[in-house]
Amino acid sequence: MAFNKFQDFLGGLVARQRDRFSKSGTPDIEELLDSLMGNTGEVSAIVAARELLDVYEGLDDEGKKDFFFNIEKNFNAEPASVKLAFDTFDSDPSSSNLNRLYRSAEPRRVELLRRLNQTPGAAHDLVGMRKDLLGLLRDHPELSAVDENFMHLFRSWFSRGFLLLQTIDWSTSAAILNRIIRYEAVHAIKDWDDLRSRVDRPNRRCFAFFHPALTDEPLIFVEVALSNEIPGSIDSILNDAAEGDIDPTKFTTATFYSISNCQPGLKNISFGNFLIKQVVQELKADFPSIKQFVTLSPIPGFKRWLDCDTEEGSADLDELKAQMRSLDIVADNVAEYEEAIRKLVLNYLLLAKKGKYPLDPVARFHIGNGAQVQQIHASADLSEKGLAQSYGVMVNYLYDLRYIERNHEQYVTEGNIEFNDKLKASLLKG
Amino acid sequence: MAFNKFQDFLGGLVARQRDRFSKSGTPDIEELLDSLMGNTGEVSAIVAARELLDVYEGLDDEGKKDFFFNIEKNFNAEPASVKLAFDTFDSDPSSSNLNRLYRSAEPRRVELLRRLNQTPGAAHDLVGMRKDLLGLLRDHPELSAVDENFMHLFRSWFSRGFLLLQTIDWSTSAAILNRIIRYEAVHAIKDWDDLRSRVDRPNRRCFAFFHPALTDEPLIFVEVALSNEIPGSIDSILNDAAEGDIDPTKFTTATFYSISNCQPGLKNISFGNFLIKQVVQELKADFPSIKQFVTLSPIPGFKRWLDCDTEEGSADLDELKAQMRSLDIVADNVAEYEEAIRKLVLNYLLLAKKGKYPLDPVARFHIGNGAQVQQIHASADLSEKGLAQSYGVMVNYLYDLRYIERNHEQYVTEGNIEFNDKLKASLLKG
Amino acid sequence: MAFNKFQDFLGGLVARQRDRFSKSGTPDIEELLDSLMGNTGEVSAIVAARELLDVYEGLDDEGKKDFFFNIEKNFNAEPASVKLAFDTFDSDPSSSNLNRLYRSAEPRRVELLRRLNQTPGAAHDLVGMRKDLLGLLRDHPELSAVDENFMHLFRSWFSRGFLLLQTIDWSTSAAILNRIIRYEAVHAIKDWDDLRSRVDRPNRRCFAFFHPALTDEPLIFVEVALSNEIPGSIDSILNDAAEGDIDPTKFTTATFYSISNCQPGLKNISFGNFLIKQVVQELKADFPSIKQFVTLSPIPGFKRWLDCDTEEGSADLDELKAQMRSLDIVADNVAEYEEAIRKLVLNYLLLAKKGKYPLDPVARFHIGNGAQVQQIHASADLSEKGLAQSYGVMVNYLYDLRYIERNHEQYVTEGNIEFNDKLKASLLKG
Amino acid sequence: MAFNKFQDFLGGLVARQRDRFSKSGTPDIEELLDSLMGNTGEVSAIVAARELLDVYEGLDDEGKKDFFFNIEKNFNAEPASVKLAFDTFDSDPSSSNLNRLYRSAEPRRVELLRRLNQTPGAAHDLVGMRKDLLGLLRDHPELSAVDENFMHLFRSWFSRGFLLLQTIDWSTSAAILNRIIRYEAVHAIKDWDDLRSRVDRPNRRCFAFFHPALTDEPLIFVEVALSNEIPGSIDSILNDAAEGDIDPTKFTTATFYSISNCQPGLKNISFGNFLIKQVVQELKADFPSIKQFVTLSPIPGFKRWLDCDTEEGSADLDELKAQMRSLDIVADNVAEYEEAIRKLVLNYLLLAKKGKYPLDPVARFHIGNGAQVQQIHASADLSEKGLAQSYGVMVNYLYDLRYIERNHEQYVTEGNIEFNDKLKASLLKG
Repeated sequence: MAFNKFQDFLGGLVARQRDRFSKSGTPDIEELLDSLMGNTGEVSAIVAARELLDVYEGLDDEGKKDFFFNIEKNFNAEPASVKLAFDTFDSDPSSSNLNRLYRSAEPRRVELLRRLNQTPGAAHDLVGMRKDLLGLLRDHPELSAVDENFMHLFRSWFSRGFLLLQTIDWSTSAAILNRIIRYEAVHAIKDWDDLRSRVDRPNRRCFAFFHPALTDEPLIFVEVALSNEIPGSIDSILNDAAEGDIDPTKFTTATFYSISNCQPGLKNISFGNFLIKQVVQELKADFPSIKQFVTLSPIPGFKRWLDCDTEEGSADLDELKAQMRSLDIVADNVAEYEEAIRKLVLNYLLLAKKGKYPLDPVARFHIGNGAQVQQIHASADLSEKGLAQSYGVMVNYLYDLRYIERNHEQYVTEGNIEFNDKLKASLLKG
Repeated sequence: MAFNKFQDFLGGLVARQRDRFSKSGTPDIEELLDSLMGNTGEVSAIVAARELLDVYEGLDDEGKKDFFFNIEKNFNAEPASVKLAFDTFDSDPSSSNLNRLYRSAEPRRVELLRRLNQTPGAAHDLVGMRKDLLGLLRDHPELSAVDENFMHLFRSWFSRGFLLLQTIDWSTSAAILNRIIRYEAVHAIKDWDDLRSRVDRPNRRCFAFFHPALTDEPLIFVEVALSNEIPGSIDSILNDAAEGDIDPTKFTTATFYSISNCQPGLKNISFGNFLIKQVVQELKADFPSIKQFVTLSPIPGFKRWLDCDTEEGSADLDELKAQMRSLDIVADNVAEYEEAIRKLVLNYLLLAKKGKYPLDPVARFHIGNGAQVQQIHASADLSEKGLAQSYGVMVNYLYDLRYIERNHEQYVTEGNIEFNDKLKASLLKG
Repeated sequence: MAFNKFQDFLGGLVARQRDRFSKSGTPDIEELLDSLMGNTGEVSAIVAARELLDVYEGLDDEGKKDFFFNIEKNFNAEPASVKLAFDTFDSDPSSSNLNRLYRSAEPRRVELLRRLNQTPGAAHDLVGMRKDLLGLLRDHPELSAVDENFMHLFRSWFSRGFLLLQTIDWSTSAAILNRIIRYEAVHAIKDWDDLRSRVDRPNRRCFAFFHPALTDEPLIFVEVALSNEIPGSIDSILNDAAEGDIDPTKFTTATFYSISNCQPGLKNISFGNFLIKQVVQELKADFPSIKQFVTLSPIPGFKRWLDCDTEEGSADLDELKAQMRSLDIVADNVAEYEEAIRKLVLNYLLLAKKGKYPLDPVARFHIGNGAQVQQIHASADLSEKGLAQSYGVMVNYLYDLRYIERNHEQYVTEGNIEFNDKLKASLLKG
Repeated sequence: MAFNKFQDFLGGLVARQRDRFSKSGTPDIEELLDSLMGNTGEVSAIVAARELLDVYEGLDDEGKKDFFFNIEKNFNAEPASVKLAFDTFDSDPSSSNLNRLYRSAEPRRVELLRRLNQTPGAAHDLVGMRKDLLGLLRDHPELSAVDENFMHLFRSWFSRGFLLLQTIDWSTSAAILNRIIRYEAVHAIKDWDDLRSRVDRPNRRCFAFFHPALTDEPLIFVEVALSNEIPGSIDSILNDAAEGDIDPTKFTTATFYSISNCQPGLKNISFGNFLIKQVVQELKADFPSIKQFVTLSPIPGFKRWLDCDTEEGSADLDELKAQMRSLDIVADNVAEYEEAIRKLVLNYLLLAKKGKYPLDPVARFHIGNGAQVQQIHASADLSEKGLAQSYGVMVNYLYDLRYIERNHEQYVTEGNIEFNDKLKASLLKG
């Protein structure tokens, strides 16, 4: 019932405005910025916003960089008025004086982004703009001030209260499914048949978060396999052809085998932790027989850590690491050393830290989320990438809704990592 | 395809949390505020947000007032860290030092509201909360600092780029239609039959703006009558029964005869100006024969102004006003003085000002929107309210998309008011 | 995504055709029938169908009667070709000769109705046409031959496999809800507030069957009350205001308190029996705690039977009836005789027969459906209608999905009526 | 809002029934047929229908053949009762006696199919069943009596008034798009990218008819290219990559370049003629600038006709045909003889007849539909198939809504074929 002839309306206005510009040359970013930030009519401002986003889109790398440097330098606040507001606050720190200082100290960039977001479709363009910006940060760290402003607003606009969870299946539109194929970041989807095998079988599910302003654009999605036991390898999930005798009332286990963030421009606006918890809830409702919710996760940092000479806090771990290196493990002989690898991986996950938190980024995500280390599987991902990252080892993190909050709190306060009791024997130290 | 078992999920968590609380008495707002603002897990924070919104909802007037005073007093910023941030900025006004000051000067109230908005359904509750707050402002102006923070966030959350225009008709859900009945603020809708006569006839249309996070809640709506001429009275619209020979390809005129804001809690987050312009666009596409888009508007400030002794800038106007008062016009003899009233109303609309803008609030809205004064109709609204406000006079403001931006700009810069040439003769001074 | 500019297309064609006709006077039914049944183009036929349905719609009662008599008399089959086909079949009763006879013996009325149904919206018009026809049958029994043809086709078109069950609630469109109000045939819905109290409370549900070709037109609907015990009176359902402490997980009983057929034109195309069974299934899935599915039904034939002098098979029953009559029960003293009335009603339901089936029409429906007599409530419907029909007595029929098929078969073969064991004591004979 | 837990309900019943059967061996078709045609309860009948359709599905070719022979032989009518009904009709040919004969002469197969269609999903299964049947007709012409009964019912169930036109685009579900790929019968869709290039470009459109009872199953679809001139070759459509400067307001021509029937089981239940006319209507509404609606069609019968020695009515045509054969045209030298081929194709289309209608099946379809022969293009389809069928020649048939009905009627009555005046010069005889 919703429609958007507004787009046409705007299109017409933009075209007319372009006609005006075309007489005096191409639209100029400075002019558009003036028009957007000025006191002209609301329609003019929305048209300027649309124009500016379109012009930005057409810029080359150099032009985009200039744009960001421009707004970094020239869209701050008036020092004099900041000082005045501060002095007033300093002499009388009332709520309204604080508000005034807050307003005075707001970089004009923030208002600029806010006004850009008035135009339909802007959310999509602004997410793309931040993606460009993130690509420039390494070489131009001074632009991180601009990024902070993007994040400040994105946190409001993409507030969790606005997100919608949707199932992705074979009745989903091609526009969305096509993006699922493109955005899958963990275990690549080869083609539409491969996609179908992941979303259109009785023992597979896929869920994604959407934001109302980003039409057809998943923010993050998770793929799930349903089965009667914890799967020991990714291959048994991706290449499981058997479909014959599946009885959905007998499933006991849901395995999250792939989680992909879709929008690089939304980096650090985290959705993942909530996605899993909400999906657990969905699956519990649809399949009361499922009691066990685990991931089947890669260990991306293991090999890098193993090859690295930094000393661990633990002499035992250093020794184990040294032993492992001496074994000269290669793709072909992985199977011979499964036991040793598994043991080292477990100790890596639990003991190798960055600050008080796990060194491994995937471990950090799930443990930080309140999950616990449940099982370690050797020879679970024999793809080139899997062998290169972790000698083919994968790990299940267990999500037990009863304990995730407790685990999370102990993790945050003490860096505590929960794990399955059965793993205790392999652990060098508690 | 979207669903929300998340609500159940949350419901379960809240219930569990309540069980915990119930052992130690009812949930305490202070505790909930601590929990929400603290560093506990994300799920805990969302649960605390839900709880806090529910507890707030249950407070009596006194309790709500206390709540607002609490967050006014105790959720500002740390003066020491503000000072530190300012000093840094003062000595080096770089972008990142400004950002830092901006962060330091952000009242904790802002973050509090942001966190409350993480929980599903929060947008609805927060709009209600601001409605309560607005009710307290007159007696407690010191709370306006809190209101500024609400507005700051609402401007982001209810960004125009997120709004959806929808037609309201007989296929609309009862949940929405019921609210249309309740929210109509100009010409009350008596019952469902009256509603149907406004949304389910070939010569009537109704449109509303919605925000994705406020399910089934219109933000603002406009009712439109389609006809072959500009209607001269509201009665000819509301009580027009003729339906027989309507030929939709022959309509020439669309009249916006009622515009209602639905959410008191969104006061000053303006949507109206854009609604009309977008609806004009819709109607143009559906009815190419319509050339004329006008309102049929009340003049709520006329009588009040007439009864008021302030001098106008114009001696002529003062005189006219004095004459009018001497006529002793009452409901029963309005028809005798139509000419005189119409003339005075026109001059009131164009000449009576508040600063450089029109004194009449409805005139201010449409003129500020880029419309022009088109026709004045005497005996156009003979309801008690119509007679009391303006001796039954109504006015058409004309929306001509070709000129609204030009009109708006001239209005903003010079306070200029456009009007139909034919009215010139009745005008005291240009 | 579905749309129907086809309607416009057709509209244009019809208008053009009308222009043609208007030159030579109004469109003539005979001409339209010729055009429809002739060998002209398909578009012409569809236009003729639309025209014919519109012209029919505009006829007065006399005109409609003429129309039916016309098609009764003049749209049969060619006796000679029927005879030829029969003779061929008679000498060689092969499948294809039977088919040929079947085709030859098909009344041209059947093909006429089939061709009318080619035009969009025809289903709706044809259902209305049959409604008119049913109104004529009493005075013109010879038209029942026409009705047989309608029924023959309606059974195909409204095949149960095409029906869709939908929940009716407050998110349903006003177009449908308005019809629910109008079509409620058992306990009138007073207004939209009354409607809302039946569809928008946590302990109320409403379901309807729809056919894809009858847009927004419910075929039949049932209203359900959810509670913790079998309600003993209709008033406790219709005027139950308590909403406070409803816990949906504690419901044990679903009561079907109103079932209304919506389309008089679909008389004898039964949907009701399946509706209840399907709704039981829905409710079981949504409320696992509900164990008991009953109706709260009127006994429309009781008083009529009581006042009637026909002898029953049973002397006991005759005596009871006589006793009852002698009591001189009126609206005001009903409460004094509850016991006696209840006993007589029970025996009426179980023993008073029409052939081997129950005399009471509502009993016949539910018992024939496989339900059993569960409880009898005195003073359960003290409305004028309730007192007049059955001294205010109502009955629960129990739907136990485990037994409905068995009950139904025993009913069909032996006229057996199942009832609750507890009622046995009040029964005159088993 | 529609849902179907009914499927689960049925599933449960079928499972229970199967348990019963499993004790006494596998379900037997004879038993199921008895149960379906008997007087058991309605639920039992629906369950039996579901079971029977499932059992049928599992049969091998021989089993299916047996099934059809069974219902051919054993599901006719009772000769005695047919005779009785005929005699009654013969002595008094009243409407009701005709009805009675019609009922008596109805093969029990018809009722059997009608009862099968009571079960949800049956429409889909019955269409599949007829597909099997059609495959048997060549070797078993006696089964055509069964096919007649299928067609009789399908004409009612798939009545044009029930069909829905839908646009197929990139927002369509993968379930439907996947079938579009599979069902394309004219110019194969290579993969999802190829599909996307046909449905997701500003100058391409695709439309399909759906029936409400065949979820996600297109019945027929048409692919359309929008452009500024009539395209001269299929390659210019299928491999047109240019997307740059498309201005949708400038399109003048819509070309139907592919029409595919999707359901072999619905053979001879024609939808195609109406599809094109309705799509013309849609496109006219969306693109007012389009004035020309043509097909770009293959000539599948040309080469077959050329190679065939039957004499035509026209000596000129025979001579032309002989000349053509003598040229020894092969794939490689087609370009040299374009003029000659084009001339012969034109005369083939207009003069080669089967009865009074065109010999070429595609010509017969479009001409019969009211289109006219507009242009002949040589070297328009240089694919292997195109060269083999018609030396690569293709033809545009023009749909002019103003004339299609007139053309159709002249075609039906006189076999008249309309063509573009410009072709006249190449025609051997008028």
